[in-house]
Amino acid sequence: MDREFDLLSMGEILLRLSPPDNERIVRGDTFVKQVGGAELNVVSGVSFLGLRTGIISKLPDNPLGTYAKNKVRFCGVSDDYLVYDEDSDARLGIYYYENGAFPRKPRVVYDRRHASFCKINVCDLPKSLYTSSRCFHTSGITLALSKQSRDTAIEVMRRMKENGTMISFDVNFRGNLWTGEEARVCIEEILPLVDVFFCSEETARLTFHKEGDVKTIMKSFTDDYPISVVASTQRIVHSPKEHTFGSMIYSKKDDRFYEEEPYRHIEVVDRIGSGDAYCSGALYGLLAYNNDCQKALEYGNATGAVKNTIPGDLPSSDLKEINRIILNHKNTGPQLEMDR
Amino acid sequence: MDREFDLLSMGEILLRLSPPDNERIVRGDTFVKQVGGAELNVVSGVSFLGLRTGIISKLPDNPLGTYAKNKVRFCGVSDDYLVYDEDSDARLGIYYYENGAFPRKPRVVYDRRHASFCKINVCDLPKSLYTSSRCFHTSGITLALSKQSRDTAIEVMRRMKENGTMISFDVNFRGNLWTGEEARVCIEEILPLVDVFFCSEETARLTFHKEGDVKTIMKSFTDDYPISVVASTQRIVHSPKEHTFGSMIYSKKDDRFYEEEPYRHIEVVDRIGSGDAYCSGALYGLLAYNNDCQKALEYGNATGAVKNTIPGDLPSSDLKEINRIILNHKNTGPQLEMDR
Amino acid sequence: MDREFDLLSMGEILLRLSPPDNERIVRGDTFVKQVGGAELNVVSGVSFLGLRTGIISKLPDNPLGTYAKNKVRFCGVSDDYLVYDEDSDARLGIYYYENGAFPRKPRVVYDRRHASFCKINVCDLPKSLYTSSRCFHTSGITLALSKQSRDTAIEVMRRMKENGTMISFDVNFRGNLWTGEEARVCIEEILPLVDVFFCSEETARLTFHKEGDVKTIMKSFTDDYPISVVASTQRIVHSPKEHTFGSMIYSKKDDRFYEEEPYRHIEVVDRIGSGDAYCSGALYGLLAYNNDCQKALEYGNATGAVKNTIPGDLPSSDLKEINRIILNHKNTGPQLEMDR
Amino acid sequence: MDREFDLLSMGEILLRLSPPDNERIVRGDTFVKQVGGAELNVVSGVSFLGLRTGIISKLPDNPLGTYAKNKVRFCGVSDDYLVYDEDSDARLGIYYYENGAFPRKPRVVYDRRHASFCKINVCDLPKSLYTSSRCFHTSGITLALSKQSRDTAIEVMRRMKENGTMISFDVNFRGNLWTGEEARVCIEEILPLVDVFFCSEETARLTFHKEGDVKTIMKSFTDDYPISVVASTQRIVHSPKEHTFGSMIYSKKDDRFYEEEPYRHIEVVDRIGSGDAYCSGALYGLLAYNNDCQKALEYGNATGAVKNTIPGDLPSSDLKEINRIILNHKNTGPQLEMDR
Amino acid sequence: MDREFDLLSMGEILLRLSPPDNERIVRGDTFVKQVGGAELNVVSGVSFLGLRTGIISKLPDNPLGTYAKNKVRFCGVSDDYLVYDEDSDARLGIYYYENGAFPRKPRVVYDRRHASFCKINVCDLPKSLYTSSRCFHTSGITLALSKQSRDTAIEVMRRMKENGTMISFDVNFRGNLWTGEEARVCIEEILPLVDVFFCSEETARLTFHKEGDVKTIMKSFTDDYPISVVASTQRIVHSPKEHTFGSMIYSKKDDRFYEEEPYRHIEVVDRIGSGDAYCSGALYGLLAYNNDCQKALEYGNATGAVKNTIPGDLPSSDLKEINRIILNHKNTGPQLEMDR
Amino acid sequence: MDREFDLLSMGEILLRLSPPDNERIVRGDTFVKQVGGAELNVVSGVSFLGLRTGIISKLPDNPLGTYAKNKVRFCGVSDDYLVYDEDSDARLGIYYYENGAFPRKPRVVYDRRHASFCKINVCDLPKSLYTSSRCFHTSGITLALSKQSRDTAIEVMRRMKENGTMISFDVNFRGNLWTGEEARVCIEEILPLVDVFFCSEETARLTFHKEGDVKTIMKSFTDDYPISVVASTQRIVHSPKEHTFGSMIYSKKDDRFYEEEPYRHIEVVDRIGSGDAYCSGALYGLLAYNNDCQKALEYGNATGAVKNTIPGDLPSSDLKEINRIILNHKNTGPQLEMDR
Repeated sequence: MDREFDLLSMGEILLRLSPPDNERIVRGDTFVKQVGGAELNVVSGVSFLGLRTGIISKLPDNPLGTYAKNKVRFCGVSDDYLVYDEDSDARLGIYYYENGAFPRKPRVVYDRRHASFCKINVCDLPKSLYTSSRCFHTSGITLALSKQSRDTAIEVMRRMKENGTMISFDVNFRGNLWTGEEARVCIEEILPLVDVFFCSEETARLTFHKEGDVKTIMKSFTDDYPISVVASTQRIVHSPKEHTFGSMIYSKKDDRFYEEEPYRHIEVVDRIGSGDAYCSGALYGLLAYNNDCQKALEYGNATGAVKNTIPGDLPSSDLKEINRIILNHKNTGPQLEMDR
Repeated sequence: MDREFDLLSMGEILLRLSPPDNERIVRGDTFVKQVGGAELNVVSGVSFLGLRTGIISKLPDNPLGTYAKNKVRFCGVSDDYLVYDEDSDARLGIYYYENGAFPRKPRVVYDRRHASFCKINVCDLPKSLYTSSRCFHTSGITLALSKQSRDTAIEVMRRMKENGTMISFDVNFRGNLWTGEEARVCIEEILPLVDVFFCSEETARLTFHKEGDVKTIMKSFTDDYPISVVASTQRIVHSPKEHTFGSMIYSKKDDRFYEEEPYRHIEVVDRIGSGDAYCSGALYGLLAYNNDCQKALEYGNATGAVKNTIPGDLPSSDLKEINRIILNHKNTGPQLEMDR
Repeated sequence: MDREFDLLSMGEILLRLSPPDNERIVRGDTFVKQVGGAELNVVSGVSFLGLRTGIISKLPDNPLGTYAKNKVRFCGVSDDYLVYDEDSDARLGIYYYENGAFPRKPRVVYDRRHASFCKINVCDLPKSLYTSSRCFHTSGITLALSKQSRDTAIEVMRRMKENGTMISFDVNFRGNLWTGEEARVCIEEILPLVDVFFCSEETARLTFHKEGDVKTIMKSFTDDYPISVVASTQRIVHSPKEHTFGSMIYSKKDDRFYEEEPYRHIEVVDRIGSGDAYCSGALYGLLAYNNDCQKALEYGNATGAVKNTIPGDLPSSDLKEINRIILNHKNTGPQLEMDR
Repeated sequence: MDREFDLLSMGEILLRLSPPDNERIVRGDTFVKQVGGAELNVVSGVSFLGLRTGIISKLPDNPLGTYAKNKVRFCGVSDDYLVYDEDSDARLGIYYYENGAFPRKPRVVYDRRHASFCKINVCDLPKSLYTSSRCFHTSGITLALSKQSRDTAIEVMRRMKENGTMISFDVNFRGNLWTGEEARVCIEEILPLVDVFFCSEETARLTFHKEGDVKTIMKSFTDDYPISVVASTQRIVHSPKEHTFGSMIYSKKDDRFYEEEPYRHIEVVDRIGSGDAYCSGALYGLLAYNNDCQKALEYGNATGAVKNTIPGDLPSSDLKEINRIILNHKNTGPQLEMDR
Repeated sequence: MDREFDLLSMGEILLRLSPPDNERIVRGDTFVKQVGGAELNVVSGVSFLGLRTGIISKLPDNPLGTYAKNKVRFCGVSDDYLVYDEDSDARLGIYYYENGAFPRKPRVVYDRRHASFCKINVCDLPKSLYTSSRCFHTSGITLALSKQSRDTAIEVMRRMKENGTMISFDVNFRGNLWTGEEARVCIEEILPLVDVFFCSEETARLTFHKEGDVKTIMKSFTDDYPISVVASTQRIVHSPKEHTFGSMIYSKKDDRFYEEEPYRHIEVVDRIGSGDAYCSGALYGLLAYNNDCQKALEYGNATGAVKNTIPGDLPSSDLKEINRIILNHKNTGPQLEMDR
Repeated sequence: MDREFDLLSMGEILLRLSPPDNERIVRGDTFVKQVGGAELNVVSGVSFLGLRTGIISKLPDNPLGTYAKNKVRFCGVSDDYLVYDEDSDARLGIYYYENGAFPRKPRVVYDRRHASFCKINVCDLPKSLYTSSRCFHTSGITLALSKQSRDTAIEVMRRMKENGTMISFDVNFRGNLWTGEEARVCIEEILPLVDVFFCSEETARLTFHKEGDVKTIMKSFTDDYPISVVASTQRIVHSPKEHTFGSMIYSKKDDRFYEEEPYRHIEVVDRIGSGDAYCSGALYGLLAYNNDCQKALEYGNATGAVKNTIPGDLPSSDLKEINRIILNHKNTGPQLEMDR
């Protein structure tokens, strides 16, 4: 399938403001200024690995929107499908993030209501969009932000699907955006469209009322819906500065579960976006290797694990780096101490 | 009159985010993090000069609100009348500020809609408020932000006035918050309550349709309304980095105009809040010197002029510093080069 | 007892200067600028938890003193009892702090001699002081700094006690300020005034020549003196970046020792002031919960443990944060990874 | 002419390292990290104004090259024609820049020899390149850097010209790269290809041995070669922090000189790249307005003038900002003080 | 005269702490950390110009003293005659400096009492000292700091003089260290030892009660004492950010006054230490050019003028830079805009 | 042996540029600016411990070279044997360093080719050099950089040896500078000159084809060549942030292996230069304690271990600090938590 993009995604781009290092939001004189957003994190990760991606989003027509657009381009993500909000109340959604250190947890404060993205409309988007990508990805956050963003996302998914685009969806449940029940009802409506489904075991149990062991749960989604691949990350938070990260992937076609040793003793610098980075690695594996779930597993785990060491939402690892990390992860012998 | 506070003010407290030095909003990795807001600027200026002040405002019940509260206290302004918004959509209004350098003008981007302050209600405030201060100050911004803030401000003004509180009002017209006509109608409604009126010549002409020379215009306000003192700042912007700043004050009681040489060749570091600093100096003069308009003029001009040299919205000059500046301004002989 | 303050404290406020991150005092181009001081740390901690506090201290009448005053206010601590030193040699005491990383220990350099605080005098203080607070706290540092500060502190303690104020005292032995023997003689003189006594096991042994197990030692203080509560922190320093922190409290009234699991695997960002933060939590528990030693234990341990994760001397945790930490500490099941 | 790009350029991309503010290269602990390069500066300026641009360059295949590529994208410039140097000695050229303040001049130190760009070869470039743009721009720097870069640039110019591409050339004489005589011989060889020629009066006199007044000189180039447009900037350096900037443009077709009042009292923040920004504005005027030299003059002067106020090599002004500046420049009445 | 050093100086080395840019001492989170001191400024200036210098001083034996020693070495000044104070109250003197911007003056706060330097003693110094340098310089600050430093400085001057060392002395009157009368008495005592005398016109009038025009005054010192050269700087402070700087030198031997056009429109970044830099240039001229007062004038004016553009106390200009500045100062034709 | 220096070394001085904290080379706005280089690291470590050292190197005659020279002096290392390259292509070699965090390894990018050091020539050096030091140290890096630097280093080693100077050599094998075989051939040529030989077990096996256990290998070097001391560090990299570091030393004279417990759980801040720091400690032990290998072991291990906690290449520990660390390392009882 020869299309302009390997992956398009639709989602909100947020301004992220964080106190430096271990400082606190309630004090201090500076904020580190970054952008993020679940779907942007995914496409930028895939872009850094070498595929062609773009983001569908709505930004305010002001310097903050320009800043976000410039950062999108910095990540090698196409801004062809960014649309601009010229209303006088146009705004870029914000979130504030504070690092944790045991026993102090990381802290997130959202200020994303009324953001320009919440007004995104199918009319904003060109028709050529629907045949321009091999794969489309979005997440539950986009469905939860506003009725307008939900309707638009679902309509885009439908049209993409009709044009033979692979549909990827990450549940990404956020209790502060909607209730579990609202999420379940809405997501069950779109699952018939989904090919690749990212859902954690915990969300499956709490939101979708699944029972049994994790394998039973993952498989059940492919029984209930025409889903090809189910991926589930497994994270153990030993402390804000030490995590273990791995995943399991189920392939309907092969009826097989793909697993490997998780990454242990991760030295966490910034955990935000590591789940999205996982999606980016997994989608890279599927898109670059003809839906090879072993590749999805290895790339997903490596990109997810290493993102924890990178400040900000956005990943920054290129293919060489990820390949070295995968190699080292499999390697049981002595290793070089640094990359020279 | 022996009251707990010399000055109370009501207004929005904003988070101010600025790129460092001459950097731009559309680029860069940090924002300088400050707070500001016209009314807070005024009371903090008066507080630094040594009087007892407080701010009436509504803040989100989250770390950003706590940050704002801490900064209010840092300025020596009482937080007794800060109330908190526990709604899930509570937010602190934001504005972004970028310095200018000729031929590039300073740039402001507002993101203050839906802020917690817009929901402030008389019910939030204790009855003791209305007899606790010698003077109450607010500005046209508070009237313009939302119907709720306008109604609350007018009601507070009324009750304060009934309890013998001196009422100070700064027009502070902002074309992006309301039209000139909306401003005129609303402000003419409250002018019968006002004792001290801050209005620039330009606003008097454009918004209140005044004609004639500046003295005619200033005097006319005291003819139309029971206003005691009218103050009007006069700023010449030679470039973003060089201003001239002065003012004229008219006293109804004396039927006299107070004037002095303006401050010329001001080396502007941050011009925001210098008009508010002027109000703070003028109110300090009136409150500390029994409504002495000469003192209001000298303190107003000095605090306004020097604020241009201080980064951020908030002033930071104590009485000793302002007194030295006034002395130097009047001094025509040789001066010491620095304060040791 | 209805008094203006829940807690007043008396002690020196220091300027603290630290190289950023892991940099060294002997190199580099910046110092992080903060304030601290054992007693200020205690009252600011109690203030952040929601009680009304103030600090009795003497500051130089210069911009450094103003900076310290502004920071006191930032913490929500009243500056009503700050007095100013207008002598030409007035100075703010300083200490330099450098972080450690194993095998390099943290480094402290003091430059606090001749500080304005050392000249503090009972004559500086208003008589209303002695009936304005429910509790008064000071530490052995104040007794050790100068004869003048010692005499003043003891006199304030006496008058406070006479007016029914609860007296809290933290030994806080510093070998560079006085000898163990000097400390013992002086402190034994004031112990008859003390209600709440903070003393580590090690200090009890080395300075007060106590013997036996820790419980025997703690109890013995209440036998020798009319002390109600003895609290003793227990810290294990695994490395400069990993500590275990807990405490034991003995209540004379109940004749009972209060204990709980210590906080283990604390990810230490800045250990300075964590002992003071412990005092603040313990005093909060006693003052807010009618001398409930279980509350003192839980609040003390949580505020002490979490302070290790916060840069600078001063705590910054409000009641919600501490309550969440206590809850998590008791919780044995799965936990949320971050506070959203 | 419907082509993918409005403007392509070929030139070296350099890492620029500068001490912050007025610090010096010989001291201090940080460098501000940016990218620049005459040709990149030009295309990024045109891109920010809204046209489609790309840069032809060669970067090392290492993280520094990736950084440069990311910045190119950040500026909205296509990286389609970036090629990578995988040799073990691949390197990104560097220059160090230190701000001046009278009587201290700005200081530049080059470390650009042996850079990957010097190895750029026609073989590196796809054939589609030569028909992909409406206009091609390069400068004397590219001709001077190495024989390889010179040969490649001349060959690209030839092929572009053959395919009907407008050729723009800026002399940009640098005495540390070649002698005036070398420059003259080489540039006279390519002038038969050039449509738009940027050359300062001083360079015309010193390098091309032109005589007479500036108009005579400018016109003479169009007599000697088939050049359509000659543009010459005129800068007066009152001090490192105050410049006057303007230009004159001669149009062969109209046989007319375009002039306007220069921008005076420019508050210079960073002068580097303002000549390149001028080229970007002038080319924007020609490309967006069908070779309208009046537009070229106005956009050139405005983008050149305002670049002096922006840190780094790269411009950052979008069309709205430049249009406002042009409007203000022509406006003789009162002006708004800031852009809100 | 073949000696190990061209210039030795004796004086206090201070830690200098400044808020960044235009920030204020009373606010903010960082101090820029530097060292300075009148005599160190002089020798480091001479060292950067290429002569061999050293500083005689006493530093605390702690990391702050080490920092100061490292900075001395950084400047190319020998630390052979630094001695260390191992007392428990050893301290490095501090001063705080805040930049000004009209109408706000620069601000200095001293905290230099009880510094280790005040305890410096002749016994601390090796006998070889007195024959190791061609010239010895100190200033009135050293005489004023403490009786101990005064006695030591005078004794060192005497022994140096006895061994044929040229003695240079800068009055550097500081009203916060001693009265004019104390200064006069003390300095008149040492003037019989002085060869090169730096004294401003204002100090000559106020402290030494001189009358008449500046030339009369300067000459009178050489009549009263065996002084060879009198140098007097002339500074006009147009604003904190714009100064004019020049000087006049009188040579007894030639009975001639040396003058040149002052440096006008200096863009002041940091004015501190520019008087000391003047001394360094003047002494360089005398020492490197066989007491040529024309050279002293030119080097003095250039180093003094350019120091105003350099952050911190310490100069940083090498001989090439100063020579370029002198050349440009004399040059009346067009100049290169930057040093490439 | 009474010579001017205890240790001279010859090697390249590099500019080191690193993103702050955990940021990445491919992003961000600042580089931390430092200097380093294996041989400079060694001599500066020895200098901080109190011996007299100097560095033989060649720097560009530009501000970057001046910066490097100033830093050399900052470290207390003599710049007497620095020579300057005035060629127009003179350059300071650079390397970029990025911190790691598991699973992301630290990253190094070199840009050191064509550096001025590569042109160093025996003719540049004065004859007095060869009799001025008790010991001379260099490393395999100097041999590998260029034929010119290799020839010069070998010639310097020969002449030093002839004049009775102890020769120290660290293999420091770098695969990106030469092959193992090239290294072996070259180093075997100079081993007859070497007295103290630093070589890791791994390098001994891979480069010198040694076999057997580590003791056998170490001893074999002293059998094959007239080497007196062989030292071999042993590092275990648990993660980029946790290492174990120790060493073994073999003394030919005693025919004895010196060992002690390694430093475990090192909290790594910056691992670069810790091997060089080891050499500095070991050489300090030998030079200050009459070739006492026990001292070499203890000082080597302590300086090497603690360097891991210090940002940048260069050590910064003085003798007191190292002595405290050695004492703590041997101490099995309770320890003070910080150095006050």
